[in-house]
Amino acid sequence: MKLQIAIDMVSSEKALQMADQIHDLIDIIEVGTPMIVREGMRAVRMIKEKYPDCVVLADTKIVDGGEIEATDAFEAGADIATVLGVADDETIKGVVKTARKFGKKTMADMICITDIASRAEELDQLGIDYICVHTAIDVQSLGKNPYQDLALMMPLLKNAKAAVAGGVTLDAIPVLHKLQPEIIVAGGALTKKEDLRQAVDEMQTKIKEDK
Amino acid sequence: MKLQIAIDMVSSEKALQMADQIHDLIDIIEVGTPMIVREGMRAVRMIKEKYPDCVVLADTKIVDGGEIEATDAFEAGADIATVLGVADDETIKGVVKTARKFGKKTMADMICITDIASRAEELDQLGIDYICVHTAIDVQSLGKNPYQDLALMMPLLKNAKAAVAGGVTLDAIPVLHKLQPEIIVAGGALTKKEDLRQAVDEMQTKIKEDK
Repeated sequence: MKLQIAIDMVSSEKALQMADQIHDLIDIIEVGTPMIVREGMRAVRMIKEKYPDCVVLADTKIVDGGEIEATDAFEAGADIATVLGVADDETIKGVVKTARKFGKKTMADMICITDIASRAEELDQLGIDYICVHTAIDVQSLGKNPYQDLALMMPLLKNAKAAVAGGVTLDAIPVLHKLQPEIIVAGGALTKKEDLRQAVDEMQTKIKEDK
Repeated sequence: MKLQIAIDMVSSEKALQMADQIHDLIDIIEVGTPMIVREGMRAVRMIKEKYPDCVVLADTKIVDGGEIEATDAFEAGADIATVLGVADDETIKGVVKTARKFGKKTMADMICITDIASRAEELDQLGIDYICVHTAIDVQSLGKNPYQDLALMMPLLKNAKAAVAGGVTLDAIPVLHKLQPEIIVAGGALTKKEDLRQAVDEMQTKIKEDK
């Protein structure tokens, strides 16, 4: 299981400072959608320039113009770009095709999809690399979480690997040990801690305590 | 009927040059999603700084973090921010609440929604200002267009106004005269013409030739 940190609410400069603290501990650094809305691919470019070996995910949440937007993300240096699972198959194909052209990876975000199972099977067939069940931050406060969706989806995947996002905390790691997704995405549970490096270290340690 | 130009595939500098040519002819300037992926809110800021009276739409296509991302768009100067119609109601409410706080407007993009009618009614009730039927650029080549969806949706709206996007050309204006959406979004039909000002002028003239 790999740990992805979602960096959402900061400037590109601050994101780079965060990368300085954790680049050797973290598996994937996500430049979150709110950062992209504010500054585009700036943080992706800055982090990849300083840490070319870091795996950087651009949370582009593409829903149209698959080739165009994926190209922008990969040209900026992103190793993984995200596309919404609700997007039309033509858009998914455009993103997958572009990723293969660049030798990069794709993640589909299952946010706002009702029938997770059948869409996950389709996305798997379309060649998506990672399929991420995701409870929106706007509905986490309603007590929702993504673990049931993860348990439902994982046995269905033939080639794609599973990822999970949406309010993941240290307490969820034992549940995730049972499910074994490829990627665990944590945001606030890491970024809101006073000592970011310690928080990442602690979660990585817990992830590796696999039973 | 108002004309919105979607500027998608250029740098912020080029978008500003385009605004220089048409700011007095166009009703709404859209900073498109691919521009946001590349450069964030830069073009929005540049255009509003030079033309504060221009109405600028940021095609943010928000699908989570409604308050956060809408705040970023409005603080950068956007007059209208877009949210995906497929987003959770909590996200829609966050975007609407933020727009009202800033005295700005919201547009919901109906891309990738199967049941346009019932979702449009819900979005109308949630306080969205404009509801935009939208054929994805990635499926326009399959011969799809948004006019049937527009005809289906318009009689259902009580407060929200209708917008239409996705391959709109000069030839579609007579159809749109019959349907009377509040906003017509045109992209390539304007931006790919050699003389941008003439293309906008021609479309505006045709729009105003209402029968």
